[in-house]
Amino acid sequence: MNLTDVSNGLDTIWVILTAAMILLMEGGFALLEAGFVRQKNAVSIIMKVFVDITFGALIFYFFGFALMYGVDNFGLFGSSGFMMHGNLGHLVTNISHDTYWLFQCAFVIAVISIVSGAVAERIHFRAYILYTIAMTGLIYPIAGHWIWATGGWLYNLGMIDFAGSAVIHALGGFSALAAAMFIGPRIGKFNEDGSANIVPPSNLPLASVGAFILWFGWFGFNSGSTLSATNGSIGHIAVTTMLAASAGGAVCILFTMFRYHKADPPMVINGALAGLVGITAGCAFVSDNAAILIGAVCGVSMVFATEFLESRKIDDPVGAFPVHGISGSIGTLAVGLFAQKDLASVAGKGYYGLFYGGGWSLLGVQALGLVTVCIWGFALTWLFLKLINTFTNVRVSRDEELIGLDVGIHGVPAYSQEHGFIDLKHIKRD
Amino acid sequence: MNLTDVSNGLDTIWVILTAAMILLMEGGFALLEAGFVRQKNAVSIIMKVFVDITFGALIFYFFGFALMYGVDNFGLFGSSGFMMHGNLGHLVTNISHDTYWLFQCAFVIAVISIVSGAVAERIHFRAYILYTIAMTGLIYPIAGHWIWATGGWLYNLGMIDFAGSAVIHALGGFSALAAAMFIGPRIGKFNEDGSANIVPPSNLPLASVGAFILWFGWFGFNSGSTLSATNGSIGHIAVTTMLAASAGGAVCILFTMFRYHKADPPMVINGALAGLVGITAGCAFVSDNAAILIGAVCGVSMVFATEFLESRKIDDPVGAFPVHGISGSIGTLAVGLFAQKDLASVAGKGYYGLFYGGGWSLLGVQALGLVTVCIWGFALTWLFLKLINTFTNVRVSRDEELIGLDVGIHGVPAYSQEHGFIDLKHIKRD
Amino acid sequence: MNLTDVSNGLDTIWVILTAAMILLMEGGFALLEAGFVRQKNAVSIIMKVFVDITFGALIFYFFGFALMYGVDNFGLFGSSGFMMHGNLGHLVTNISHDTYWLFQCAFVIAVISIVSGAVAERIHFRAYILYTIAMTGLIYPIAGHWIWATGGWLYNLGMIDFAGSAVIHALGGFSALAAAMFIGPRIGKFNEDGSANIVPPSNLPLASVGAFILWFGWFGFNSGSTLSATNGSIGHIAVTTMLAASAGGAVCILFTMFRYHKADPPMVINGALAGLVGITAGCAFVSDNAAILIGAVCGVSMVFATEFLESRKIDDPVGAFPVHGISGSIGTLAVGLFAQKDLASVAGKGYYGLFYGGGWSLLGVQALGLVTVCIWGFALTWLFLKLINTFTNVRVSRDEELIGLDVGIHGVPAYSQEHGFIDLKHIKRD
Repeated sequence: MNLTDVSNGLDTIWVILTAAMILLMEGGFALLEAGFVRQKNAVSIIMKVFVDITFGALIFYFFGFALMYGVDNFGLFGSSGFMMHGNLGHLVTNISHDTYWLFQCAFVIAVISIVSGAVAERIHFRAYILYTIAMTGLIYPIAGHWIWATGGWLYNLGMIDFAGSAVIHALGGFSALAAAMFIGPRIGKFNEDGSANIVPPSNLPLASVGAFILWFGWFGFNSGSTLSATNGSIGHIAVTTMLAASAGGAVCILFTMFRYHKADPPMVINGALAGLVGITAGCAFVSDNAAILIGAVCGVSMVFATEFLESRKIDDPVGAFPVHGISGSIGTLAVGLFAQKDLASVAGKGYYGLFYGGGWSLLGVQALGLVTVCIWGFALTWLFLKLINTFTNVRVSRDEELIGLDVGIHGVPAYSQEHGFIDLKHIKRD
Repeated sequence: MNLTDVSNGLDTIWVILTAAMILLMEGGFALLEAGFVRQKNAVSIIMKVFVDITFGALIFYFFGFALMYGVDNFGLFGSSGFMMHGNLGHLVTNISHDTYWLFQCAFVIAVISIVSGAVAERIHFRAYILYTIAMTGLIYPIAGHWIWATGGWLYNLGMIDFAGSAVIHALGGFSALAAAMFIGPRIGKFNEDGSANIVPPSNLPLASVGAFILWFGWFGFNSGSTLSATNGSIGHIAVTTMLAASAGGAVCILFTMFRYHKADPPMVINGALAGLVGITAGCAFVSDNAAILIGAVCGVSMVFATEFLESRKIDDPVGAFPVHGISGSIGTLAVGLFAQKDLASVAGKGYYGLFYGGGWSLLGVQALGLVTVCIWGFALTWLFLKLINTFTNVRVSRDEELIGLDVGIHGVPAYSQEHGFIDLKHIKRD
Repeated sequence: MNLTDVSNGLDTIWVILTAAMILLMEGGFALLEAGFVRQKNAVSIIMKVFVDITFGALIFYFFGFALMYGVDNFGLFGSSGFMMHGNLGHLVTNISHDTYWLFQCAFVIAVISIVSGAVAERIHFRAYILYTIAMTGLIYPIAGHWIWATGGWLYNLGMIDFAGSAVIHALGGFSALAAAMFIGPRIGKFNEDGSANIVPPSNLPLASVGAFILWFGWFGFNSGSTLSATNGSIGHIAVTTMLAASAGGAVCILFTMFRYHKADPPMVINGALAGLVGITAGCAFVSDNAAILIGAVCGVSMVFATEFLESRKIDDPVGAFPVHGISGSIGTLAVGLFAQKDLASVAGKGYYGLFYGGGWSLLGVQALGLVTVCIWGFALTWLFLKLINTFTNVRVSRDEELIGLDVGIHGVPAYSQEHGFIDLKHIKRD
């Protein structure tokens, strides 16, 4: 036993434990979404999260990881490490490639889960599986390569996206927007005059559990992104994460009390999440007070973005775009404003933002990277859904949508109060 | 990379991970309380937990932390470290001030969450926000300073409250009692002849999830309070925590089978929690067998305290006082009886309790400290609620209470089985 | 502070944190089972999980641990360490005996929780408490001694069961089978002609939360079983765990789409769990691709085993035997096929399986050990239930079963929509 062994062991358990926390966030996504949608679609959205995890992990293992972290080609994509074999010698970390893979795998699953919410209650299960393969095998890994892989072109330009406001949340959020627009609003969501109708969430306590689990997982998401337990920023990252989330939630409590004369529970839940998304890029680089500001701005922006989507007749049932797309964008740009090198002992990537004497250059790079991944996510998602739609319907039939996807597609309701048994002989399987 | 770096990194991730576990306990509180109250108030109690976290964290950042851990004044309060700036040089730990703050922040949020349960189903949301500010910005930080801050007068007297049976649970529990008495019982809880009426919990599975999450978080709460991963007591702390919780739960299973002829689920849930509360002060200082005894005594006492409150016409919907106030008190005193120095390698604070040759002195200090924080919590809570009541009603209107706070205050039900959309034009916003 | 202190501290927090994750799995079991059973029995199954934890931990403390890890007698059982006192000097680990105990305690609680699902909706609470004592105090500790204790006869033969596919899951699964057969099917489950009737799960979102929590805990279960943070296999273990679970889930998505024309949510949930069970024995010894294969085979086998049980008129409401018994067996045998020493730096127990040049010997030992613990679990469970049945009914009365165990045995429903209070004077306690 020597110091290097201990140090490597320390880094390993740090990354494994935080990866497990991020993977638990899938439970959070599932509950948040199941609680927000109508009861008749609660199981179907959870099944989509199961697709995110199971197909996502396997596809990332077979293809995605290699495209993202394999040997660089022209700053555009990686090309080694399929099934974790081949040349990965350029990945120099204290932790094993296995450990590194698990952490990255937890991230890719988060991205696809963002999209699942926006197409809730109307996407067909088969089509969703195919889209998941595209997202986890191609769309995300390529964008991730640009920003996070050594040699990626945005990485080379000096873009800062510590734990992924851009590459996880903005990418996921703009992909979600494309998917929601492609598939169209749920039947009955909008009137002919353009006004929106509402439906209360089916299970707000469940949605809240989801939010608490996501919040918990976010400490793994942000702090764990150091990939090293001896990184001096871990405490600071956790604090900015906590403060931004609190600011996002608190501001939505106050803002909805002022605007709607009642603290609006779904907005408060999404406000805290918006704060978390917003701080994800800069958690290691901005001050506590900047974190509070970022969280607050993200919370309020999320409310306006939600209203804007409705006014544009875009139907995003759980607010995936306002929470992830908008706050992810704000967070990415905020780094260009608030980054302070003296706070940033992470990965040698310290820079100064506009407000701290760094001028416009960092902000410019952040904006360039952000616009790029947003367009990439939006366009590729639209393209793949178009493609998928040519051989299987992306949207369920009108009957299936009205009955609900749980019974319509999966043959089972989310909740049952049945006290006795049902004779199978009277049920015919399709 | 040297040994100190590794050691500090180790302590850092230990504290960050356990802090995250404690923060997840908020999810536990939310579910426990949402499951125990009536369905019409399930969202409102969860919204209060969101207030606990979001306002709690911000207020503690701006004020509370400085009052608690700033430079000592006369053993009574701290006065530096507002927004974590200013002189905090006296805080000597292996971990950064950021990391230390996060852990302490998780604690303050737990305290206020205890109170939220006792005033469930009838406190007004605005008033609750104001009370949260008082608790997290003043009441708890001052009491915490006395016991936990170097220089605090109870700290100087040698009081032992390892992870907070007194300063978290007894303080929170007696504050909850004051709040429940101030606000009065729910409409219909008591008959004119003084007898109590009952209502079944709205969602026991949800309440159980809450309890399991709290139990999980408690390993962070107690073991993490070492603030150092190389503290030799961590294993012992985790074991006494496990055994006391198990004893509290098991004894309530047997006791309610004997007393009510059925194992009573809410009592079993609260019994396990009572055991956890009870061991919190002494987890590092008492033996395994003493832990079992403490847990069992706390479990049974919780049952009697619940019955006592009902007989006194005090309405505490989730049992906040029996679980936290009573078990916290028992746990604090138990240290004075069962502490054994040879088990206690924590923070140099080893003492012997009455049963291990230490005489009456430790027990005396524990009793003095306990009585002080209980009176402090009770009195200040009463005072602040009185004050708040002068400019906004602490209690909701009769109509809002009968309709339920979810629809009455937050405009949305906890659960909805709506299959279609509701036309917004037919709803008028107030 | 020296390197050994730091190293020991590192191992300690690794084991404590992973133990806490495993204990949280009880929340997962509770929700999975409460969601799968009928609403009228949701509380009763959760109360059984409370018995698992509370009685399980205490009995294991008083008796079980000593029988399992005490001084060996003839390779058959241990005999020191009752209440963690007496000679335990042969347990040589970096971590304290306390820490070691907590981890083992988390395991024993998992075993008994497996059985609780198979007897759901019809076992009497008193009888279940007695059976829990037998399982945690005798049945599991003895089998565990054979395989995991230094000196155990299967340990001496070189059996590999890294985190317990055999000793936890196969033992638990075959015990569950015996219990389900002993107690007989639920009223109405089977028709006179032998055909089976169905009832939809009462709360699939809740069951899904359970599965996500179990999945999270499994990272603790498998990776934590290294008992050392500097073990080089931790990353690999976590990856094989992730891949096997994903394969189990994905294959059940595809297989049920093919077989039933719809992705069947309960099967998908159980498929992921089957993958997790299957990889538990070999997670440190098999390759990534073998893990995917094992997970996939376990998933499909679980579906067939579920159908087989129904055809044999054996009623296992949550699929405890298909998930744990079958996949545990497959996983145990798979080690004999796929083990590769170069992957196995764990505990010096590296061997080669049949497909990697190791011949039949390891497979033989695995099969011998597997058959032994399955027979042991089945036989002892049958015996103890027979014994318990002589002085208290193992099965509830017909009336209690029809009313449901929640109201029938525990006097409270799982869910209530009551808005007002019920006058206690009109309720008579039995």
